[in-house]
Amino acid sequence: MPAKKVIIVGGGFAGLKAARALGNKSDIAVTLIDRRNYHLFQPLLYQVATAGLSPAEISGPIRGILSQYKNISVFLDNVESVDLKNKKLQVPGQSLDYDYLILACGAKHSYFNHPEWEENAPGLKTLEQATEIRRRLLMAFELAEKESDTEKQKQHLTFVIVGAGPTGVELAGAIAEISRHTLMKDFRRIDPSRTRVLLIEAGPRILAAFDSELSRKAARDLEDLGVQIWTNTRVTDVKNTSVVLGEEIVKASTILWAAGVQPSSLNKILGTPLDRAGRVIIEKELCLKDHPEVFVLGDQACLMGEDGTPLPGLASVAMQQGVHAANQILRDVKSQPRRPFRYLDKGQMATIGRKKAIAQIHNLKFSGFFAWILWLFIHVYYLIGFKNKFFVIWQWAYAYLTLKRGARLIVDKEWRSQPKSSV
Amino acid sequence: MPAKKVIIVGGGFAGLKAARALGNKSDIAVTLIDRRNYHLFQPLLYQVATAGLSPAEISGPIRGILSQYKNISVFLDNVESVDLKNKKLQVPGQSLDYDYLILACGAKHSYFNHPEWEENAPGLKTLEQATEIRRRLLMAFELAEKESDTEKQKQHLTFVIVGAGPTGVELAGAIAEISRHTLMKDFRRIDPSRTRVLLIEAGPRILAAFDSELSRKAARDLEDLGVQIWTNTRVTDVKNTSVVLGEEIVKASTILWAAGVQPSSLNKILGTPLDRAGRVIIEKELCLKDHPEVFVLGDQACLMGEDGTPLPGLASVAMQQGVHAANQILRDVKSQPRRPFRYLDKGQMATIGRKKAIAQIHNLKFSGFFAWILWLFIHVYYLIGFKNKFFVIWQWAYAYLTLKRGARLIVDKEWRSQPKSSV
Repeated sequence: MPAKKVIIVGGGFAGLKAARALGNKSDIAVTLIDRRNYHLFQPLLYQVATAGLSPAEISGPIRGILSQYKNISVFLDNVESVDLKNKKLQVPGQSLDYDYLILACGAKHSYFNHPEWEENAPGLKTLEQATEIRRRLLMAFELAEKESDTEKQKQHLTFVIVGAGPTGVELAGAIAEISRHTLMKDFRRIDPSRTRVLLIEAGPRILAAFDSELSRKAARDLEDLGVQIWTNTRVTDVKNTSVVLGEEIVKASTILWAAGVQPSSLNKILGTPLDRAGRVIIEKELCLKDHPEVFVLGDQACLMGEDGTPLPGLASVAMQQGVHAANQILRDVKSQPRRPFRYLDKGQMATIGRKKAIAQIHNLKFSGFFAWILWLFIHVYYLIGFKNKFFVIWQWAYAYLTLKRGARLIVDKEWRSQPKSSV
Repeated sequence: MPAKKVIIVGGGFAGLKAARALGNKSDIAVTLIDRRNYHLFQPLLYQVATAGLSPAEISGPIRGILSQYKNISVFLDNVESVDLKNKKLQVPGQSLDYDYLILACGAKHSYFNHPEWEENAPGLKTLEQATEIRRRLLMAFELAEKESDTEKQKQHLTFVIVGAGPTGVELAGAIAEISRHTLMKDFRRIDPSRTRVLLIEAGPRILAAFDSELSRKAARDLEDLGVQIWTNTRVTDVKNTSVVLGEEIVKASTILWAAGVQPSSLNKILGTPLDRAGRVIIEKELCLKDHPEVFVLGDQACLMGEDGTPLPGLASVAMQQGVHAANQILRDVKSQPRRPFRYLDKGQMATIGRKKAIAQIHNLKFSGFFAWILWLFIHVYYLIGFKNKFFVIWQWAYAYLTLKRGARLIVDKEWRSQPKSSV
């Protein structure tokens, strides 16, 4: 009997876990397709955006990660469309047959039908966005140092973060720390500690996914760092250098977007039922109702948890689903009945800054230094590759001890030599 | 008496050394201007281009490096023009007065009056160029893996490096190693070790600045790695995916430029005598003949050595000149006579690859493993910042032991989320 052709789209947490679970299994031929050549450890992406870590330290080449599995081929490609009926996947220049398809394309930012806002308020989902945010962040201080007009200077030193989920909180905390510690001695004309960091949240409280007591603790910790928190505040427009909040206008050179996410645009062309957020509605076995050979995982899919609410967009959900989907395929091959997915809740955590974090595991709640240590070790533990683990620990140890940051580079997008510039 | 205003343009080896030598000196107010916010350790730039190191590991923020010197201000700016007569420097939006001016703007690539070649054959002078080269390098293997047409596959697996100076040799050696070791197990359809690396040199031998015996040794070592060396070969055209060598045409997806360099374009508007290479001709004291208050250093200037040939474009020359220029300013302030610059020849070295390098110090010649160890320690020693030293050693130890490379990322230039792409 010929090997079953399994195509995995996406080298994120779900896709990579699925691939590994199918690695070197007999009668299985896996093709993993991603438009990136690397796996990105998204939980630490905010560290790249805030000059704490380098891109290579939170990502690893997918080929390298999977090279030990002889039955897995990796292709750098864009998926153009999926023909569920004929079990075909279209990539530029060719169409690929599959027996099983695992879609784990993740999510990107949603600007609530205002795509034009992205230019003024980048989100934080990719390495390119992280380095762009880093560029804007560091550039703002440089411009402030050059600026003689105090009003403009104030604008350069105002940072607005829209959305107070974990990413927004982590960005706000890190920016506040950079301005108060890292850059303290580096400028002559401006006082970076006069930086204004504004965290805007439409809902009644920050970190809404957490227990209210923890989210209150986090808010206090952020305010200790000098972050101003505006809850129940809705953004009505994002201009080039200002955020409009109904009546109010806040002038800021740097505006960052950490509000909504939307699943991969592939969902729109799948022709299967989607939930209101645009996520594919999947069965308990993580497959499509009419296409049991097609699994949709992680942020791209919507599965109700035992409490009747959709499972959260967490790495642990994606990883568990990846393994589960792979196992169902293996059970099929062994003609064993499939099993429903059960999410083992590993809790959730968010870091506010150096020495401060919150963590929630079932009814256990942690905050402060212990939660931060917990956060640190869990993130390092799950980071792929010994080398990266090792380096990240040292970067953090270094940053912790010296308050310096390892990656304070303003890198252009343009690589061609620029005749106009003289230096 | 008011403090002497010293403006330094360029935060490279020369500018940074000059700034440090003037740091916290009484009666001296220093302004350092660079269009980058970081100092780049150029000797290791090829390691970024070949995925061995991350940009942040070979560069440090100029502000951070100089923050301890209270009399130094750093500005991120482009110098538009210099008014030697009135001692004024023009940057966007303002003009700055100076008592002393130190120009250390370095050099960029020269395409011998064929600027249009740059698009097809990037050079290696900036971090942006390094990451662009890394992108093309890694992408070539990805495209080869996808390609079914064997001719096209061959083209993707052909790498042409133009110019066999240290940079060209280091690039060729590293690419050969990546294909033979790093990527060996990562592909399923192609055999990366079938990669063709072609090093093209117009002159009669590679590494012409070195003793002929050493350059012959280096050539043998490169050939051991599988590099093909074509000397006495002139490039007549660089097309999108091919290099024209007179009659001959070599098809290659990746073409890298390591041939000529030209000094900063600022030289053209200075209105002072330039040598044939466009470098500013300076006095033995490193200043301009008619403007003793203006010093021009490093790759931007031309000073004859004791042997009657111009001093080489080496970091050690730039660093020594930076210190010397600073000292002459200090001597002026103390109304002591100036002294001529004497280059203390520290020799030169080039690395061919893992465990292989050549070094030449006066009449001493080293090659092979010992030279490589020497190269390694000297480069780490001069690398700015303890953290970077530490990390680079570990990156190298890791690469040396595992043959892996730490920074195999294909990063886009575009940061905006791309609706067309599905993953």
